Amino acid sequence: MKAAVLYEKFQPLVIENLELEGPKEHEVLVKITASGVCHSDLHYMKGDREHPMPVVLGHEGAGIIEEIGPGVTYAQPGDHVVLSFVPTCGRCSYCVKGRQNLCEARYQLRGNMLDGTTRLRNGSQEVHHFNGLSTFGEYAVVPEDSLVKIREDAPLDRMALIGCGVATGVGSVINTAKVKPGSSVVVIGAGGVGLNVIQGAVLAGAEAIIAVDIYGNKLENALQFGATHMVDASGEDVLERVKDITRGEMADYAFEVIGSTDAINQALATTKRGGTTVVVGVTPTGAELKIDPDFLHLDRILMGCTYGSCYPRADMPMLIDLYMARRLKLDELISATLKLEDINSAFEALDQGEVARAIIRY
Amino acid sequence: MKAAVLYEKFQPLVIENLELEGPKEHEVLVKITASGVCHSDLHYMKGDREHPMPVVLGHEGAGIIEEIGPGVTYAQPGDHVVLSFVPTCGRCSYCVKGRQNLCEARYQLRGNMLDGTTRLRNGSQEVHHFNGLSTFGEYAVVPEDSLVKIREDAPLDRMALIGCGVATGVGSVINTAKVKPGSSVVVIGAGGVGLNVIQGAVLAGAEAIIAVDIYGNKLENALQFGATHMVDASGEDVLERVKDITRGEMADYAFEVIGSTDAINQALATTKRGGTTVVVGVTPTGAELKIDPDFLHLDRILMGCTYGSCYPRADMPMLIDLYMARRLKLDELISATLKLEDINSAFEALDQGEVARAIIRY
Repeated sequence: MKAAVLYEKFQPLVIENLELEGPKEHEVLVKITASGVCHSDLHYMKGDREHPMPVVLGHEGAGIIEEIGPGVTYAQPGDHVVLSFVPTCGRCSYCVKGRQNLCEARYQLRGNMLDGTTRLRNGSQEVHHFNGLSTFGEYAVVPEDSLVKIREDAPLDRMALIGCGVATGVGSVINTAKVKPGSSVVVIGAGGVGLNVIQGAVLAGAEAIIAVDIYGNKLENALQFGATHMVDASGEDVLERVKDITRGEMADYAFEVIGSTDAINQALATTKRGGTTVVVGVTPTGAELKIDPDFLHLDRILMGCTYGSCYPRADMPMLIDLYMARRLKLDELISATLKLEDINSAFEALDQGEVARAIIRY
Repeated sequence: MKAAVLYEKFQPLVIENLELEGPKEHEVLVKITASGVCHSDLHYMKGDREHPMPVVLGHEGAGIIEEIGPGVTYAQPGDHVVLSFVPTCGRCSYCVKGRQNLCEARYQLRGNMLDGTTRLRNGSQEVHHFNGLSTFGEYAVVPEDSLVKIREDAPLDRMALIGCGVATGVGSVINTAKVKPGSSVVVIGAGGVGLNVIQGAVLAGAEAIIAVDIYGNKLENALQFGATHMVDASGEDVLERVKDITRGEMADYAFEVIGSTDAINQALATTKRGGTTVVVGVTPTGAELKIDPDFLHLDRILMGCTYGSCYPRADMPMLIDLYMARRLKLDELISATLKLEDINSAFEALDQGEVARAIIRY
């Protein structure tokens, strides 16, 4: 099967014909219909984060079950699924307290399947999996626990986005921060995930939704997704603008959706006393966040956020229902639809801040 | 009236006979019966934090109303009161949302009363108030909004501690972090406030309460207050010990009660994925907290905390009821009872880590 392989950081992905072994116990073979091109993949390509190489990246995908391995009971061939980049075992101390996004299984993957081996090879060379998914290939073998079954009337290409950007962005608002109706919300970074933070804030009933970015086209996009105000951080004083918009109060919530320590500090500074800042962006490995503890002192809260603190098998079908009811935008998130062969150009565009979300359609 | 005056940082307090003007509108004159000696006062003496000088420090006091100014309706002469170092106006956007500890009035004080003037003089020299209280004097003029009326059968000397250390420590557990029964809790710093964090954790039903300090006598004290484990940070590996005690899981909650950025990082490192760290300690002005955002990423939460996120007029009477019902320790918090003349020796002892809480009895 055809897949995009990262052999070394700083190198483009290489389209290869790989061998994919069939599913072992509690694994399934999925025919991938679409995969999103996400900043988290780019981090590994740019060397911001480390991963065993070579690897097939891609962690935002949807598809149809082709074959099930021994012991699989959750799904059958033909089922439509979104893939969760955190497998949720349902039995660890995190899962049993409803914190599936922190499931222990996630930490057993390390570039392999849950049993510590890989199903991907290029001739004699072992190729690594990514978060148990590796959606930048025509097929993927994934853990049963990574599957989220979805309704079959939902268009499978767009459903890929549910698996990361939408679950993360909307989840950071409704699960992590639990934004209350009437709140003021600052969103720093209006890319693929930031737009979902914005539509999460709309769903949560926020009053002021202030999009901050340095790209005018992203800010215009933000308004389409429900931002009530836009601030161009390349030319405007962000704190002054937030102060004006909130009538001097500053914001109840701020979301950092870039992965920059400067932006985290800027987010913190936009919040009022008792306000909450959520770090959605993923910073490069080794980044150091320097904050003034005095600023925290006045009951401010700084929250980490992984995968929008989501419950994949509960939240993703719910998000799809919202999309089908036209209360959540997905079509408008897709700024480009490409073939796998063109994946490097999608990453170049992403790196230059040009797109909301590109998807690879197989 | 006799009061302890700080003229300059790095200098001892000077016992002076000051003139105290009577209460103006919405102010009362309180005969102070006792005042706690708290680390927050010491911060100003040591130059860690700035304040207009000269100033009468002291922000943890109780007493009896001697005289009321025009317009005062909340209290009458003879009423027993604990003093809140945050006046709560009941009308600002924070008070009306139940966040009295963040009341706007606090930020109008700046070394004066709410009208911007002082009631304290030493001859021709104006002397500043501290948080609207200045309890290191025999009498104080304070805003009506700083009063918390309390039951008259409660011993007034011990009640002073309710006004800061107890409200802050217990409040950080029950209001800020909202610790759940069965949780594991790390408390770094077992001084006057840390002991109250510990007894807050007991009240909240925590399962493991792990006290961390570098002073053996403080750790022994911590056990008296309900800590289930003690870790001597001067000789033991704190993270390893917490890991052992929590069977490899690490802690649900950590409280930093020292005011040190290193200790904040240590607290963070003791928490599990999704865990909460509360910064109760007050760091020196200009301190820089450097944290690894990756560590936050996994849904960890870092919370600031001022005054235990307390509701003074609700929480303080409740805490006193708990004391009277023998469910909260106050007597054991008092490691020394001194006269105002001996206040400098109390601060010296505090600076050297020797005491839980010294109180000045008038």
